[in-house]
Amino acid sequence: MKILIMGGVAGGMAAATRLRRLDEDAEIVVFEAGPYVSFANCGLPYYLGDVITDRDTLISHSPESFGNRFQIDVKLHHEVTAIDPATKAVTVHDHAAGTDSTHSYDALIIAAGATANLPVALASPRTLTLRTIDDMDRIHAILDEPGTESVVIVGGGFIGLEAAENIRHRGFATTIIQRGAQLFPLLDPEMVAPLAAELVEHGVTIRTGTQVRRIDGDVVTLSDGSTIRAQLVIDSTGIAPNASIAAAAGLRIGDTGGIWVDPRHRTSNPFIYAVGDVAEKTDLVSGTATLVALAGLANRHGRAVADVIAGTPDDAVPSLGTSIIGVFGVTAASTGWNETRLRASGRAHRIIHVHPASHATYYPGGSILAIKLLVDPATDLILGAQVVGRDGVDKRIDVLAVAISAGITASKLKNLELAYAPQYASAKDPVNIAGYVAENTASGLVPTVQWHEVDALAEAGATILDVRTAAEFERGRIPGALNIPLDEIRDRASEIPAGSVIVHCQVGQRGNTATRILTQAGHLVTNLDGGYLTWVAGTTTTGRAR
Amino acid sequence: MKILIMGGVAGGMAAATRLRRLDEDAEIVVFEAGPYVSFANCGLPYYLGDVITDRDTLISHSPESFGNRFQIDVKLHHEVTAIDPATKAVTVHDHAAGTDSTHSYDALIIAAGATANLPVALASPRTLTLRTIDDMDRIHAILDEPGTESVVIVGGGFIGLEAAENIRHRGFATTIIQRGAQLFPLLDPEMVAPLAAELVEHGVTIRTGTQVRRIDGDVVTLSDGSTIRAQLVIDSTGIAPNASIAAAAGLRIGDTGGIWVDPRHRTSNPFIYAVGDVAEKTDLVSGTATLVALAGLANRHGRAVADVIAGTPDDAVPSLGTSIIGVFGVTAASTGWNETRLRASGRAHRIIHVHPASHATYYPGGSILAIKLLVDPATDLILGAQVVGRDGVDKRIDVLAVAISAGITASKLKNLELAYAPQYASAKDPVNIAGYVAENTASGLVPTVQWHEVDALAEAGATILDVRTAAEFERGRIPGALNIPLDEIRDRASEIPAGSVIVHCQVGQRGNTATRILTQAGHLVTNLDGGYLTWVAGTTTTGRAR
Repeated sequence: MKILIMGGVAGGMAAATRLRRLDEDAEIVVFEAGPYVSFANCGLPYYLGDVITDRDTLISHSPESFGNRFQIDVKLHHEVTAIDPATKAVTVHDHAAGTDSTHSYDALIIAAGATANLPVALASPRTLTLRTIDDMDRIHAILDEPGTESVVIVGGGFIGLEAAENIRHRGFATTIIQRGAQLFPLLDPEMVAPLAAELVEHGVTIRTGTQVRRIDGDVVTLSDGSTIRAQLVIDSTGIAPNASIAAAAGLRIGDTGGIWVDPRHRTSNPFIYAVGDVAEKTDLVSGTATLVALAGLANRHGRAVADVIAGTPDDAVPSLGTSIIGVFGVTAASTGWNETRLRASGRAHRIIHVHPASHATYYPGGSILAIKLLVDPATDLILGAQVVGRDGVDKRIDVLAVAISAGITASKLKNLELAYAPQYASAKDPVNIAGYVAENTASGLVPTVQWHEVDALAEAGATILDVRTAAEFERGRIPGALNIPLDEIRDRASEIPAGSVIVHCQVGQRGNTATRILTQAGHLVTNLDGGYLTWVAGTTTTGRAR
Repeated sequence: MKILIMGGVAGGMAAATRLRRLDEDAEIVVFEAGPYVSFANCGLPYYLGDVITDRDTLISHSPESFGNRFQIDVKLHHEVTAIDPATKAVTVHDHAAGTDSTHSYDALIIAAGATANLPVALASPRTLTLRTIDDMDRIHAILDEPGTESVVIVGGGFIGLEAAENIRHRGFATTIIQRGAQLFPLLDPEMVAPLAAELVEHGVTIRTGTQVRRIDGDVVTLSDGSTIRAQLVIDSTGIAPNASIAAAAGLRIGDTGGIWVDPRHRTSNPFIYAVGDVAEKTDLVSGTATLVALAGLANRHGRAVADVIAGTPDDAVPSLGTSIIGVFGVTAASTGWNETRLRASGRAHRIIHVHPASHATYYPGGSILAIKLLVDPATDLILGAQVVGRDGVDKRIDVLAVAISAGITASKLKNLELAYAPQYASAKDPVNIAGYVAENTASGLVPTVQWHEVDALAEAGATILDVRTAAEFERGRIPGALNIPLDEIRDRASEIPAGSVIVHCQVGQRGNTATRILTQAGHLVTNLDGGYLTWVAGTTTTGRAR
């Protein structure tokens, strides 16, 4: 059995090592076009910022180590340039020797990853991407040059923000250019606000709603005509699967641009498999094909394709795309679909925002989380979740991701029995609290409105009733709001005008109690979901504040 | 509708406030025997250690605040002394006024909690428990006395260890007396080792397998005849439900000593409910009645009983008893059953130990976790899990607790799509890795043996084969082990004696590869589950090292 693997990073090497553990006799050859095998691509930004100082830790494996331990033949600088499914052979170009050769296979695994598609406007000697160790070394060298003072980063996704944090951390003027209306569109506008604010707080300049028109020397010209001087431009505008060789070989390519595969990672040819960023995944929420360029899935599917080839297959499960980013102490995480995507696709959803403390408020070191759930109104199944904060974010997104995978409904999050001691959580964990609010909205006990609905409702005549204290009201309020603190609301209910009332507090909890009191007193009340905090965050990002 | 509540801490106040939100017209009266309502009992140890310095944060609510906001009548120093189910009334003693009164109810909620049962041998003026604000204040005052130098803590459970950490943190000589063979029996022996080592490292004296025989003045005499001077003795040997009033009223008491309740928190009397530490729970693993004295469940069931009384009931789900403790930077957490309990009950189980890094090893700040799974061999369902380490422990126990609740099998933990960036996790999350190992053992691909089986197998003639490097072998080894590093094992397989071979490495991963290589070469091999690290931990705790 001869197995060829195209690509020697996450998916390819996971497949190779698992194959060896399953079959001592297989011949396993890995062709890697680049100079390194199995390097830590998620660590690259942190080497730029001197957070990781030992470059060798990013390149922990060598062809020799895979050879000694796993008898895997790793060929660096070897690029697969053609696949011939008819003869079951690949053509390989050896970049070091300048020669080409042909290799037959019993099974071929394509794990060629994805590469950045440099937009034409960014073409310049000063523009680099950040996808490989070589990219990292080049950027590091430019940062070390005496003339380097200013860096422009194009694209506010994962790599853009991580690069911005690290480059700014070293003191360079750092500007992020984002074509869309907000940074990091994986998060909804009101959830991205703390992340954006933290970047600005640390001196990063954010330019949204604009793009680079051209680069001349160290002058970057934007679409609004303004210019920024920059000695380095990092392109993180996006990536595309390296599927051209597969396409040329006649393999089926999906609408996403990735290689079509079945749940056992098999392409349209029965002897060819594809895993990692180059292959399509099935989306858990929609059931349709999607691209998910995450290291976790690449590793998992690499291991899984080895099981398939060795005769112990297990179907891949649909993907949620759980992901996380940290910048300057703020962590933001997401799983499943966000509101923007649900609205764009016309899919019905109910929204829950909560802002619980990350752990018991009487124990030092905690902070306030923002948690958002998107819920299917018909089934109460969770379609997506977002968590942002300074502490305990990764835990809550993981708990929610497992709940979604397992089909635990939003209302039943209240029943999760999570670990509590005051330094780790609260007796009512933030996820339990999200479940309580979800149940209250699902049952109709406490109807809610969203931050972006307030304007229209107020214009239609609704009263905005702020039930926070007078001191909180003085520090900042929704324009036009009436203030009656919660503890006075039974006595002062007569001050509330007839008609529709939008109650709100700081985070939603006192608003919940006020809504119950006033509803039972005969008022027509909804609670502003997530309270003033969510409204401020949303209107800040979108500029919708009146 | 008049609802009386017996007990004003977690379960009682959660019930009271939820009831008010559901029903503005109900009459709600809470009788609390003590001087405080809704205090933060899980914070008490941390006030002793000056980690929490503002005492008021532990008493965040007052009868007035519940009165103003929720129109709940909280009566402090009022102890329910009798329940008359026939007339639906309770007798209440007012400790402040010295008077008794009778109060009728439509519904009665018993949330009387549990109290310490002081063993006779501990009776002394210097012995205190740590269950209330008053207890805490008394202990704090004794610690502040100039003559206080040494504290004995009896019982190495949650409160004992948390008290020990905090009291030692302030510099007092601190000794924990534990009747059983190991500290903190919620964890299995090999899992408790890092916790015990950390306590010793910080100067806490641990005396296991002994108990206090008597206390005379400041001399504590143990059962082995030895004595310890101590100006303060803290009893944390255990608690029992405050069920005597309920029992006297003829309510059904379970074999556990807690009040029997149905899934809707109703006692054997249809107008009386019980929640929190005083009430039985249903165990998820066995399906039988159990006691779980955890704040999370008390809060949850307090809220749930309000829903039942208000006519929107939802059945309680069985309990896992997920819990967590931190001492001196080491965190230990548990959910479901441990090995000790499974063995004692004769329930079949498969065991998995893994020791992954808490996050990507190339990113600073991570550390090694110990994760243990107990798995039902017939169904692959997870019966229990334990996690110990310095970083990311709370996250992994929560993920595992949700997986258990949702019926995700051990092998399918591999599919959980958890958030990865290098500062939070690894591309293969520790929980995924536990799933991989679980799958390898379930399928028979890599058979394993446990640390406590090594002695007997070696005596029966098995070869212990250490596949770590020579340097690792030199630093510490299992007596009698043969050392052939993994990377040399194919060439040196002829050195391995015929017959049964127990392979091991440091944590199990290289052992896994070695097992596969040697099995395919015709050897009869098992891998030592969790490797040398688990073996050292287990033999250290039990003194079983040869």
